Amino acid sequence: MPDDPNHQHHNQEEEEEEEAEAEASLWAEIKAEARQDAESEPALASYLYSTILSHPSLARSLSFHLANKLSSSTLLSTLLYDLFLNSFTSNPLLLSSAAADLRAARHRDPACSSFSHCLLNYKGFLACQAHRLSHLLWSHRRRPLALALHSRVADVFSVDIHPAARLGSGILFDHATGVVIGETAVVGNNVSILHHVTLGGTGKVGGDRHPKIGDGVLIGAGATILGNVRIGEGAKVGAGSVVLIDVPPRTTAVGNPARLVGGKEKPARHEDVPGESMDHTSFIAEWSDYII
Amino acid sequence: MPDDPNHQHHNQEEEEEEEAEAEASLWAEIKAEARQDAESEPALASYLYSTILSHPSLARSLSFHLANKLSSSTLLSTLLYDLFLNSFTSNPLLLSSAAADLRAARHRDPACSSFSHCLLNYKGFLACQAHRLSHLLWSHRRRPLALALHSRVADVFSVDIHPAARLGSGILFDHATGVVIGETAVVGNNVSILHHVTLGGTGKVGGDRHPKIGDGVLIGAGATILGNVRIGEGAKVGAGSVVLIDVPPRTTAVGNPARLVGGKEKPARHEDVPGESMDHTSFIAEWSDYII
Amino acid sequence: MPDDPNHQHHNQEEEEEEEAEAEASLWAEIKAEARQDAESEPALASYLYSTILSHPSLARSLSFHLANKLSSSTLLSTLLYDLFLNSFTSNPLLLSSAAADLRAARHRDPACSSFSHCLLNYKGFLACQAHRLSHLLWSHRRRPLALALHSRVADVFSVDIHPAARLGSGILFDHATGVVIGETAVVGNNVSILHHVTLGGTGKVGGDRHPKIGDGVLIGAGATILGNVRIGEGAKVGAGSVVLIDVPPRTTAVGNPARLVGGKEKPARHEDVPGESMDHTSFIAEWSDYII
Amino acid sequence: MPDDPNHQHHNQEEEEEEEAEAEASLWAEIKAEARQDAESEPALASYLYSTILSHPSLARSLSFHLANKLSSSTLLSTLLYDLFLNSFTSNPLLLSSAAADLRAARHRDPACSSFSHCLLNYKGFLACQAHRLSHLLWSHRRRPLALALHSRVADVFSVDIHPAARLGSGILFDHATGVVIGETAVVGNNVSILHHVTLGGTGKVGGDRHPKIGDGVLIGAGATILGNVRIGEGAKVGAGSVVLIDVPPRTTAVGNPARLVGGKEKPARHEDVPGESMDHTSFIAEWSDYII
Amino acid sequence: MPDDPNHQHHNQEEEEEEEAEAEASLWAEIKAEARQDAESEPALASYLYSTILSHPSLARSLSFHLANKLSSSTLLSTLLYDLFLNSFTSNPLLLSSAAADLRAARHRDPACSSFSHCLLNYKGFLACQAHRLSHLLWSHRRRPLALALHSRVADVFSVDIHPAARLGSGILFDHATGVVIGETAVVGNNVSILHHVTLGGTGKVGGDRHPKIGDGVLIGAGATILGNVRIGEGAKVGAGSVVLIDVPPRTTAVGNPARLVGGKEKPARHEDVPGESMDHTSFIAEWSDYII
Amino acid sequence: MPDDPNHQHHNQEEEEEEEAEAEASLWAEIKAEARQDAESEPALASYLYSTILSHPSLARSLSFHLANKLSSSTLLSTLLYDLFLNSFTSNPLLLSSAAADLRAARHRDPACSSFSHCLLNYKGFLACQAHRLSHLLWSHRRRPLALALHSRVADVFSVDIHPAARLGSGILFDHATGVVIGETAVVGNNVSILHHVTLGGTGKVGGDRHPKIGDGVLIGAGATILGNVRIGEGAKVGAGSVVLIDVPPRTTAVGNPARLVGGKEKPARHEDVPGESMDHTSFIAEWSDYII
Repeated sequence: MPDDPNHQHHNQEEEEEEEAEAEASLWAEIKAEARQDAESEPALASYLYSTILSHPSLARSLSFHLANKLSSSTLLSTLLYDLFLNSFTSNPLLLSSAAADLRAARHRDPACSSFSHCLLNYKGFLACQAHRLSHLLWSHRRRPLALALHSRVADVFSVDIHPAARLGSGILFDHATGVVIGETAVVGNNVSILHHVTLGGTGKVGGDRHPKIGDGVLIGAGATILGNVRIGEGAKVGAGSVVLIDVPPRTTAVGNPARLVGGKEKPARHEDVPGESMDHTSFIAEWSDYII
Repeated sequence: MPDDPNHQHHNQEEEEEEEAEAEASLWAEIKAEARQDAESEPALASYLYSTILSHPSLARSLSFHLANKLSSSTLLSTLLYDLFLNSFTSNPLLLSSAAADLRAARHRDPACSSFSHCLLNYKGFLACQAHRLSHLLWSHRRRPLALALHSRVADVFSVDIHPAARLGSGILFDHATGVVIGETAVVGNNVSILHHVTLGGTGKVGGDRHPKIGDGVLIGAGATILGNVRIGEGAKVGAGSVVLIDVPPRTTAVGNPARLVGGKEKPARHEDVPGESMDHTSFIAEWSDYII
Repeated sequence: MPDDPNHQHHNQEEEEEEEAEAEASLWAEIKAEARQDAESEPALASYLYSTILSHPSLARSLSFHLANKLSSSTLLSTLLYDLFLNSFTSNPLLLSSAAADLRAARHRDPACSSFSHCLLNYKGFLACQAHRLSHLLWSHRRRPLALALHSRVADVFSVDIHPAARLGSGILFDHATGVVIGETAVVGNNVSILHHVTLGGTGKVGGDRHPKIGDGVLIGAGATILGNVRIGEGAKVGAGSVVLIDVPPRTTAVGNPARLVGGKEKPARHEDVPGESMDHTSFIAEWSDYII
Repeated sequence: MPDDPNHQHHNQEEEEEEEAEAEASLWAEIKAEARQDAESEPALASYLYSTILSHPSLARSLSFHLANKLSSSTLLSTLLYDLFLNSFTSNPLLLSSAAADLRAARHRDPACSSFSHCLLNYKGFLACQAHRLSHLLWSHRRRPLALALHSRVADVFSVDIHPAARLGSGILFDHATGVVIGETAVVGNNVSILHHVTLGGTGKVGGDRHPKIGDGVLIGAGATILGNVRIGEGAKVGAGSVVLIDVPPRTTAVGNPARLVGGKEKPARHEDVPGESMDHTSFIAEWSDYII
Repeated sequence: MPDDPNHQHHNQEEEEEEEAEAEASLWAEIKAEARQDAESEPALASYLYSTILSHPSLARSLSFHLANKLSSSTLLSTLLYDLFLNSFTSNPLLLSSAAADLRAARHRDPACSSFSHCLLNYKGFLACQAHRLSHLLWSHRRRPLALALHSRVADVFSVDIHPAARLGSGILFDHATGVVIGETAVVGNNVSILHHVTLGGTGKVGGDRHPKIGDGVLIGAGATILGNVRIGEGAKVGAGSVVLIDVPPRTTAVGNPARLVGGKEKPARHEDVPGESMDHTSFIAEWSDYII
Repeated sequence: MPDDPNHQHHNQEEEEEEEAEAEASLWAEIKAEARQDAESEPALASYLYSTILSHPSLARSLSFHLANKLSSSTLLSTLLYDLFLNSFTSNPLLLSSAAADLRAARHRDPACSSFSHCLLNYKGFLACQAHRLSHLLWSHRRRPLALALHSRVADVFSVDIHPAARLGSGILFDHATGVVIGETAVVGNNVSILHHVTLGGTGKVGGDRHPKIGDGVLIGAGATILGNVRIGEGAKVGAGSVVLIDVPPRTTAVGNPARLVGGKEKPARHEDVPGESMDHTSFIAEWSDYII
């Protein structure tokens, strides 16, 4: 569950140490990748030094890169840099989530050839980290600032995640353009969401009105999920589907309006975790049988 | 009907005065909101002063904000500011439409917590005002300039409304990313349009080839409406629908291809104005019965 | 076939000369259009001189315009300009493809009133040329630079074409926002692709996993085509369709999931080339019969 | 006397009309020059259109040019443009002074080949106009804004004129770099001041402590005039002089410390107005006799 | 003596506490001034919030202001901000020197109406703080970075102080344009230096070759002091003087070449500290007697 | 003599080859310096890669660096880059002059620690190269463009050299702030000019009215030379001097007004070339004898 992880551990300290080590090793790998790219491509070296190689930590690199991407003539990069760096420093969870997202992209997206490529170029990754920052501001009741940041992310990346929405870690927003996630939406861990996906509300009444996405869910390109419905753990939503109903765990919903593959009564269940396996199309055979 | 409102009034002067008063009061409220935000959030105060609090009127504030958002290295902010301010000054209708749009967002979108939030952050609102400005230029046969402005809006906000398209007032573009509205489209008053909505043409033949949207219509996320079809007053188009046919007033079209809820012959009619009530999903029960 | 055109000609030199003449005449026409616009609209003259009228060739004009659009605080316009100009100079095919794309937009899009309008304002045209440049870098194994450029195009135009994807010439990306084309996709010549179209993969396994689009295909707004499927020459994909199957030449696929108009066994065949005729909706009657 | 011209006229209206006509004719000449330059030099046309040819008046052109020159990341060009344009509109004297300064440069500086050259390129001219604007703000007790503007002029042009200093019209600051003019200095009409000239104070005591320069004075490069001394009408101060004493009208002071040419008792008097004739060196013979 | 202050104190801790208190109180005063200005001048409020009022400390405000002033397209403001803030944090002496300089300007310059005015607008103050930062880098053997920063200061403020030069505290650079201070120059505490002053070398031989300026010295506008000469404590150098000789403490050197007022053998000695009293001209009477 | 060097050579080709080799070796040295600095100072690496290390030649590096320094919101860096690169390519003399200037700075200025330091940071060097470019434009009768460029140099570097002025090669402008060189001035080879130096005219009459500076001359800080006077080969002008007379070869002029050291009749002659030896002060003893 995002935002309130109730992990119990024999030894939390040990775990934190491991996490810190993992992050340090990730950062070392990112720098090694960037160094190699800088050597092979002098035209890009200046860019790689300013965004990665001149920084002592992932937190500074990300703060710098996001601040420059999201700044505008009325919202200066130095202000954003300061804000981001302070947030990363006081909330280590932000950084471990970023690290988990980097690993998710690298692991799940065959087009993601290196961590540094994701860190620098994936608008989905960057929009997600910016969302975590604006969510933190929102939680601290600095709402006007959270909304201003949200607005910059929507302009710059065409990704529109309300600051109040709660996201887990290990999230992959693939391609990301056009993603819209509403105020009361919740997204679990290890979820993969393609571009043009909407987690939308049902109307003008306030309150809890957006979808809840379980861990390990995969949502295909252009899918629209509306209302306070529940997409169960490990479920899959086909590309272009319009979902207005709950989807049980480990089942697949497809079509407009979306129906469960295998039928409402006894839907087919899959064994893998689609948010991680990224299998978009294995249901086709079954679907074809069912529909056509 | 947008662009040629044939209102008859006992006393037009009185009405204009009322409108001016309403606008002044709206502007006062916006400044009060911004002032409170500036006090509670010093990091945002500079932004709020430059965009709102330093300006004597909504027209100047909007001109400043849009000019800075839409400027580029080859289209300077001072040029745009001048252009916008002159347009607002010589066309009071532009400002009253902006005011109506602000009220629409505040009234219909539960995530819209204040007028200033909409004015500063809603790309749908800003793209709509920029469209009104480019439409004015188009009407005055300053087409190359209208198209250059249109292009900036499409780049910056990912909202693509042809300068020739005619829009009413009280329009809400919610989230707005990916909206495409073609050259001969007409949109009535008090319409709500979600993101990824297309009001598209039918091919490469010129002439009147885009949809006509009646007053009070609600068009759900990702809906595609193609051709010179008529979406009747108070009708509703479900998310993800592909509409190639006329939709009668107060009825609902859903699906791909879209069909009328309740059937072609005797479609179900609703009483509310969906463009204002923003009820996206009440047809689900009926739809399910009909389709699944 | 893009990228390896095996044209045989009696006289290649003659053909090249003709091509050069055609490009020179196109450039002359563009300048004439811009000159006329500059005269009629002084407010735009500075923009028109800097983007078109001050340049001696289309290659310089495009390099300048793209460099300014795609530059950022960490990727300077001078660096991009240099890169683009060198690419255009050493690869004449880039320029002839750009010329073919300009003609395609002018010929197929009734809203495209002049070549200069397309050159300056069509994000689809500009994103496509930027893709050709990043594809060239990719081919020369300058991948980090290709990906950095790709990322800028995705940010600035909300058009996401993987540098490895292969595109033919005479391509029209109409409106273009939200287009996503994956790593192993191939797009033929004279194809027209509307906004929000996805040519996506099937999952996290690498290898050849994206659609192959034949010459003369028309893909409607919001269509999603997934997997290594083949859309045959002159085929048409309806707006909002979700295509997971091969589509035979000169047939039409519509719906979610997409089916062939006329039925799987004996699909209806059309005579025109929809990628050029841009006929989006003539199948409606038939479709209606078939489905509703 | 600057700032309070007590001119009596038979018919003030007539005079104002003449002035307006003269300004209109000057503006027409500037545009004609710029148009010719734009035609002969396409690389500069964009610059000439944005700074001169797209503007309907000298006031707008100057406001635009100064706003872009003086803006910074924390002081936006739109804010400055608005401020300058409002000032020019409400204080016609600002514009007639600018016109007089343009004529002075054109008339007195053999390197000044056209009005537009001075308007665009002379940092002395631009710094002087910016001073007039900051002086106006100072007079209206908007001192923090006046000082912020003053600071920008000192950074951008290396010309440091305190906002409280009073300047006449028809002023030529030739080359201008390094000019420093203190708070209580007064400069008359038709004065020519070369670069590195200081009109400085005498210490840390406030009050009236800076030089008073009469009409028609010429002050050579690098001259330093300190304290509340009076440089009489039509006097001349040689380059590099350090003046700590009053200089009578129509006499010449040279040297460090400066002495009157011809001697203190019976200084040589010249007939011309050196501020207009710009004769820097005719005193050499006499000086040589006197000193060497 | 700058750079190695050998102060002995009964209680250093106490002193440091006092210094911290004094700085806190200075910062509180600066914020109060800025707040009052922001209230009285809305057009400047955005600027005042971004530069002063949004910052929690003088160190952050100065880092922000300098970073934005000194940044360029190839040296980003975020990089400079980071560098400056780290320097201020790790070297408290930098901040106490800045505070002393602010007090010096406020106390000695009658045109300096407030601390915030000096902090924001005095190029001499800002150039001096930037020098302290580049000097720190130089001391830490980060010479290429020190020189890059030095170069930006020379471009932006026209103040050219070699990073190796050592400056005391309580320095006032009044007007500052054109000041040049060479590599081996040393400037004591409480020194006042006017614009165009040169502390230059004697030729192309390296080694200790620039002037040594004692505490409390006043150097008038345009004075040139060349070579490894010693300007004694409390001495005064007249405006425009060219000094190639030692100047004993509490004496005054004037003229080109400079001679001691009162004669080489028994020069006149003054009682005050001219660097603080800023008395530029009291020697005139005597000088006149001596020379003319 | 600048601008028309009438060198006779046994074998010009050979010489050109040697020159090309010398330039290539200089560029290699510059890159080696920059590479070492980038390695030792990661914070500067991005800057060094963008300005030097990413470029294949000195011409491109200089074009890039100058274009970014001199660009403004109305004069874009891409335009300037294009202009500069074309100029360097078509006029090899520009580059060999730049190389000679780099060597002059490195050889004569003890504070110049490396070629790359001069290339990147010396405003005198950069202003001089920009002048050569604007002089070339002037010679080709592209005067408005030459003047626009001249104006940018005067703003950015506070160095004001009229485009028509003719400069030799091997020029060192040390510190450079405030240098003013008039329209008909001529400066020979291997000249060293300190900051605040003026080569000015005599009044408002056009024609040949500025100084002619012979080869190997040294002009001290703040010297003002006025009128069409001749400063002979190898002569020296003392700091702060005001020169209105011819100065014979190998003599020294000092003072205000300047007199020849050793007397008008039989001035002292020195053996060295002061423009290269940079001996500013050896005349002091003699001067003192002569004057005081």
